[in-house]
Amino acid sequence: MRLEILPVLGIGDVTEGDDLAAVIATAAPWLRDGDVLVVTSKIVSKAEGRLVDVPADGPERLAARDEVLAGETARVVASRGATRIVQTHHGFVMASAGIDASNVDKTRLVLLPKDPDASARALRAALRERYLDVAVIISDTMGRPWRNGLTDVALGVAGMPAIRDHRGEIDPYGNELQLTQLAVVDELAGAGELIKGKCDQVPVAVVRGYPGVAGAGDGEGARALVRDAELDLFSLGTAEARAAGLREAATLADGPGPTAADPAAVDRAIAAVTEVVAPGTVFTHVTDEEVRAGLVATVPGWPERATGLVLGAAPTPVDPADLVRFGADLQRLRTALAAEGVPSALLPPPTGSTASAALAI
Amino acid sequence: MRLEILPVLGIGDVTEGDDLAAVIATAAPWLRDGDVLVVTSKIVSKAEGRLVDVPADGPERLAARDEVLAGETARVVASRGATRIVQTHHGFVMASAGIDASNVDKTRLVLLPKDPDASARALRAALRERYLDVAVIISDTMGRPWRNGLTDVALGVAGMPAIRDHRGEIDPYGNELQLTQLAVVDELAGAGELIKGKCDQVPVAVVRGYPGVAGAGDGEGARALVRDAELDLFSLGTAEARAAGLREAATLADGPGPTAADPAAVDRAIAAVTEVVAPGTVFTHVTDEEVRAGLVATVPGWPERATGLVLGAAPTPVDPADLVRFGADLQRLRTALAAEGVPSALLPPPTGSTASAALAI
Repeated sequence: MRLEILPVLGIGDVTEGDDLAAVIATAAPWLRDGDVLVVTSKIVSKAEGRLVDVPADGPERLAARDEVLAGETARVVASRGATRIVQTHHGFVMASAGIDASNVDKTRLVLLPKDPDASARALRAALRERYLDVAVIISDTMGRPWRNGLTDVALGVAGMPAIRDHRGEIDPYGNELQLTQLAVVDELAGAGELIKGKCDQVPVAVVRGYPGVAGAGDGEGARALVRDAELDLFSLGTAEARAAGLREAATLADGPGPTAADPAAVDRAIAAVTEVVAPGTVFTHVTDEEVRAGLVATVPGWPERATGLVLGAAPTPVDPADLVRFGADLQRLRTALAAEGVPSALLPPPTGSTASAALAI
Repeated sequence: MRLEILPVLGIGDVTEGDDLAAVIATAAPWLRDGDVLVVTSKIVSKAEGRLVDVPADGPERLAARDEVLAGETARVVASRGATRIVQTHHGFVMASAGIDASNVDKTRLVLLPKDPDASARALRAALRERYLDVAVIISDTMGRPWRNGLTDVALGVAGMPAIRDHRGEIDPYGNELQLTQLAVVDELAGAGELIKGKCDQVPVAVVRGYPGVAGAGDGEGARALVRDAELDLFSLGTAEARAAGLREAATLADGPGPTAADPAAVDRAIAAVTEVVAPGTVFTHVTDEEVRAGLVATVPGWPERATGLVLGAAPTPVDPADLVRFGADLQRLRTALAAEGVPSALLPPPTGSTASAALAI
């Protein structure tokens, strides 16, 4: 097996309504069944008229751009300064929703194709009508966390699976393979970029020799590459997630958990706040066993489902300001417990006491 | 321009001490000046003896594996269940620090090369001694956030720049390019993967036709692809960053900020806690102007540098438990202010008052 990566030269400026299949087939009469076409998303967007008019410069341009970005955004993932990393309505996570101002008039912005998989299927079908059985990848340039530099990846694909699955394969040593699913269409998109360059002189590359293309169905598309945010360990930017943690602390819900808290976690939480609470304030973890042993009796309103508690004692003598500070320190402890995954609730103080309180955990 | 991607066949099992340059040159006598060799990191690790012995199975194997992982880990980035995404000592962010149990005896684990750039330079130099002027990329398979499927990327490179920089280039429409830095060595590593397959029958691929390789220097290596964690918007997993926010809330430092707080941010913070504080508790934002107008006089201990405050009033009548709850609610508000980027400090209550308090912001 060997692959060739060939540029499709002579594709001029693409404008709305252009027949991309005709443009490409005319520029590359040498296309063959089984070829993989890597098509820059921008010419697909242009042919599909995915352009918006904006002022050429000034604050008006920025305002118009923000409005367009909001329209393309399903949710904001992270932002810093002028940078906006968002999830698009397709599910792609990209800077500025993939909106591009290069290779287009200064008064227009190019949006991503509305449905890149559908665009790939349509282009493939149109080439089929010209008796060409090829796979089509719609590609765009994306950044990524942790690594500098961008790479081209697939927004849409038709005519081959997006992922090559090695599940169940056994290596020569008899081990089942660990890294089983390769995003081959992303690797093909990147391979195409190597000869396309960035100035769109060459918006289409052809990868020749990749097996299994001729005779294949459209496949499930690049949609298969989109990971659900709930399954993603990086669904939010670090600063955004940290702020979410602070907001969560501010609105911490009451209620001990259904199961006994890990004593080590409770001790870590108590240790975490020891330095910041009022000098002399003491927190003590009381375990289930001790609760059942009778300590519970000292805490009116103790809920049946309680699985333990933390007793807090403020330094005496106590004046009103000390009690306010004590309450703040109890809330600090509740937050530290939450950070350890231990829900809690502030209980009414034991009768007759003004300097102590209890958290149900 | 056109690229070819060729497999190097006939490379058998690589073991410690093997001369990779000899192995590759023998298997591929057809190599030419200007070729780019994409070499699977695993055979580099094996030749360099980057293997550790572990029990073949059972809890002992898991324990040994955890110990090896800890040794390869500079910091944990994210974890869920058994998954550990860590930053290695090289700076790469990878699942399990790139430790691999495939294509090796069941009683051994393969670590990443200690310095993949140095490995690439050494292999390139050894091939030079055989009068071959090539670039060498050491590749491995990595996952990424947001997209399913893995791709091969570069851990090390010698003989070409890791990044192709388009900065300053102008497109045909006169726009300066926005996406300027392409991680071409990652795209080349991915292109090589397309013909290597995952069972290491083909651990080396050759990309022929990529310009600028012959006569080039070693270059700065793949190190240039490692983004500093401080510059990364995703330096921590979402759950880890959220927990960090909770811990930060628990240990919130005292002290108003040096500059006036954005009134809108203060109002958002007050609104955020309104639902969760004790019924009847009221928080009021008092601006600098109002402070200077004399309100400050009601708050003893008001710091000179104060830039505003929030007055809190608990519902009356007040018993000790109410004051404890009031303190907890004030801490909730301080946390909500922190989430809005507004530092604060709890001030002593106005003299004679037991039901009100003030936050300096």
